[in-house]
Amino acid sequence: MTVRNALYAQSGGVTAVINASARGVIEAARQNPDRIGTLFAAHNGIVGVLREALIDTSSLSDDQVTSLSQRPGGVFGSCRYKLPPLDDDPEGIYPRLVDVFRAHDIGTLFYNGGGDSADTAHKLGLLSDQHQLGLQCIAVPKTVDNDLPMTDCSPGFGSVARYVATSLLEASLDVRSMCDTSTKVFVMEVMGRHAGWIAASAGLVALAADPSPLLILFPEVPFQPEAFHAEVDRLIEQHGYCCVVVSEGVRDDCGDFLADSGRTDAFGHQQLGGVAAVIAGMIVENGGHKCHWAVPDYLQRAARHLASATDLSHALAVGRHAVALAMDHHHQVMVTIERISDSPYQWKVGHAPLAEIANVEAGVPAAYIREDGFGITEQALTYLAPLIEGDASQVLRHGLPDIQTLPLQCVPRKLSDFKV
Amino acid sequence: MTVRNALYAQSGGVTAVINASARGVIEAARQNPDRIGTLFAAHNGIVGVLREALIDTSSLSDDQVTSLSQRPGGVFGSCRYKLPPLDDDPEGIYPRLVDVFRAHDIGTLFYNGGGDSADTAHKLGLLSDQHQLGLQCIAVPKTVDNDLPMTDCSPGFGSVARYVATSLLEASLDVRSMCDTSTKVFVMEVMGRHAGWIAASAGLVALAADPSPLLILFPEVPFQPEAFHAEVDRLIEQHGYCCVVVSEGVRDDCGDFLADSGRTDAFGHQQLGGVAAVIAGMIVENGGHKCHWAVPDYLQRAARHLASATDLSHALAVGRHAVALAMDHHHQVMVTIERISDSPYQWKVGHAPLAEIANVEAGVPAAYIREDGFGITEQALTYLAPLIEGDASQVLRHGLPDIQTLPLQCVPRKLSDFKV
Repeated sequence: MTVRNALYAQSGGVTAVINASARGVIEAARQNPDRIGTLFAAHNGIVGVLREALIDTSSLSDDQVTSLSQRPGGVFGSCRYKLPPLDDDPEGIYPRLVDVFRAHDIGTLFYNGGGDSADTAHKLGLLSDQHQLGLQCIAVPKTVDNDLPMTDCSPGFGSVARYVATSLLEASLDVRSMCDTSTKVFVMEVMGRHAGWIAASAGLVALAADPSPLLILFPEVPFQPEAFHAEVDRLIEQHGYCCVVVSEGVRDDCGDFLADSGRTDAFGHQQLGGVAAVIAGMIVENGGHKCHWAVPDYLQRAARHLASATDLSHALAVGRHAVALAMDHHHQVMVTIERISDSPYQWKVGHAPLAEIANVEAGVPAAYIREDGFGITEQALTYLAPLIEGDASQVLRHGLPDIQTLPLQCVPRKLSDFKV
Repeated sequence: MTVRNALYAQSGGVTAVINASARGVIEAARQNPDRIGTLFAAHNGIVGVLREALIDTSSLSDDQVTSLSQRPGGVFGSCRYKLPPLDDDPEGIYPRLVDVFRAHDIGTLFYNGGGDSADTAHKLGLLSDQHQLGLQCIAVPKTVDNDLPMTDCSPGFGSVARYVATSLLEASLDVRSMCDTSTKVFVMEVMGRHAGWIAASAGLVALAADPSPLLILFPEVPFQPEAFHAEVDRLIEQHGYCCVVVSEGVRDDCGDFLADSGRTDAFGHQQLGGVAAVIAGMIVENGGHKCHWAVPDYLQRAARHLASATDLSHALAVGRHAVALAMDHHHQVMVTIERISDSPYQWKVGHAPLAEIANVEAGVPAAYIREDGFGITEQALTYLAPLIEGDASQVLRHGLPDIQTLPLQCVPRKLSDFKV
């Protein structure tokens, strides 16, 4: 058996636990020196491959590899970059990729990303088949949006879910303290342009001994202002206050984003996010209730300090299993998480064909959304609950996460420049 | 020595650790049954006193009292309510307070709040002197804004500081991963209308092994757009990205709030917060850099999950010491934190006269702000560093903070209704 090199790349929006998947890939690759020579990591995803910016992961000590689980963001750099169609490539992207893979004798690609990245990995698999590169393409799942099909959940999501539910529970206790003479509605905007999984995770506050009065606005449910205001008024009447969690992707009856529907920011620009302020404005206008609003933005997906232990285990396992699949000669597959049971929560890793994953978005199913559209069902709660279980301990230094400086340097290039 | 009752009240914006002070007061009061009879807690601060809505804290078991340290927000309810001047009281607020204090034989008041609350406690002390109520007034400090004079720091601040620095460090790793093809500037808005302590705490990322490139906008420093954009451009040139932490209270050259200076939200209303979006808009307009922005709002001051152990110790200690001061016949004083040394960090509790505290705001001193106005000095770092030390462990249930439901009920009223 010849020993060829492998390449790991991070792609798309990063998460609190994506580096645990990197750790999984690196550790498993190190256990197979007879099959994998050098494991490179692309600097900034596929863009780094095009630029031939490749980091030799053997510069990391075993301890440094272990420490990757502690670190949010993408340690090797990620990117937003969509490959052109295979048969319409005026810029010569694919020939360049072929050159880079050949120049560094890459026999396996571990591509760590979400739906778009599965598409990239799939295209590279087809490219390999066309050019007989012998490049095994294995996708490692990751997305806070939890919208990958064929897998029970996506690494990255459980930690955001824990962040959202914890933050909401804490903020609701704050609002409850003050609602008699101050704020009565707290609006929190969460990520999820097309799928409402992150918004749904706010419903996990139902697990608390004393749940917060909560309305959720999903991208899957057209926004109905009258019903919304009536429900806000009802909750305030009953509890003295309420919380609203709104997905950035919530749309009106015509299918337009609420945050984009002709509304502009203070400069006349289309708003950069900010649907929370739109909803808060509506509440003030309608009922005169004092509102506060929050937009955690990147804080939610970078919050390694609130990572769920379950999510971190998933992230590590999918990285390790990607290597196992490669050793088993799989090609054009994505690692999946398969749920065995809800309670006790049991799961295992599996795999599914990339062709069935690329560009498919799995939104929140109707059975998970309450009939009135403003909350989640028991079935959703059963699904979500195990994903936020467990605290993923962190090493601290001066009261802050101890993020090490790592020796990451690109290896000497063998090819000419390529402009991306 | 006669045994009289005591009253504890929470006032103003709540914090992640204010209930640890409540715990301190309750525990210490329980240790002095020969001096303190019933310890009441006002439901919703001074408003609850006016309404004669008083909770008998003896309904809480010792374990429940201990668990208060786990709980953000104000467990007994707080309020925003400013007492009128003592000599201009057309609504009869003060006679009502006298009635309530007498009806329940209140001999000591523990008033847990910030600057405005110190003013309230001070007025109540004067009221007691006027009417010979024999009411000892002890203020227990609390404010995330850290703007109380005469104390080294205010309980509540250290935890927000840890939240801000941790969140910023995490988000900056996210932005760094993606800056080559995506967001180059991350703007985070923090609380602090008049004092920039919370904004300053972002500078704690300098303690990280690999500090984030950061600009801070303080309310103490008039906003200079040209210098700001030049510094943003410089940091992006050098690091590929940067973070901006902006205090909600940042003002322009004319002293107007940036968030209020004629700029309106999508509905034509004056913006509810949202200076982060204003700054992001300016950055996009000036340099075309892709921006993301976050407004954690209440999440920052409710984040018990990120409380610093130091802050939690302070909060507990000031509660306990308030009772000790009462036992020592002090009146019209606030408990203070006194710093003995920076490193190793050593501190003790003390006290200061309320008359010197009420309505005085202690902003960030000039020596703590870097000469260019966009960061903190070494001296500031030395001051801030100990305040975020230590993780304050939390009890979890289903992956969320385990917030207990407590038996809190108001005692029967003895007086007639009073409309507040």
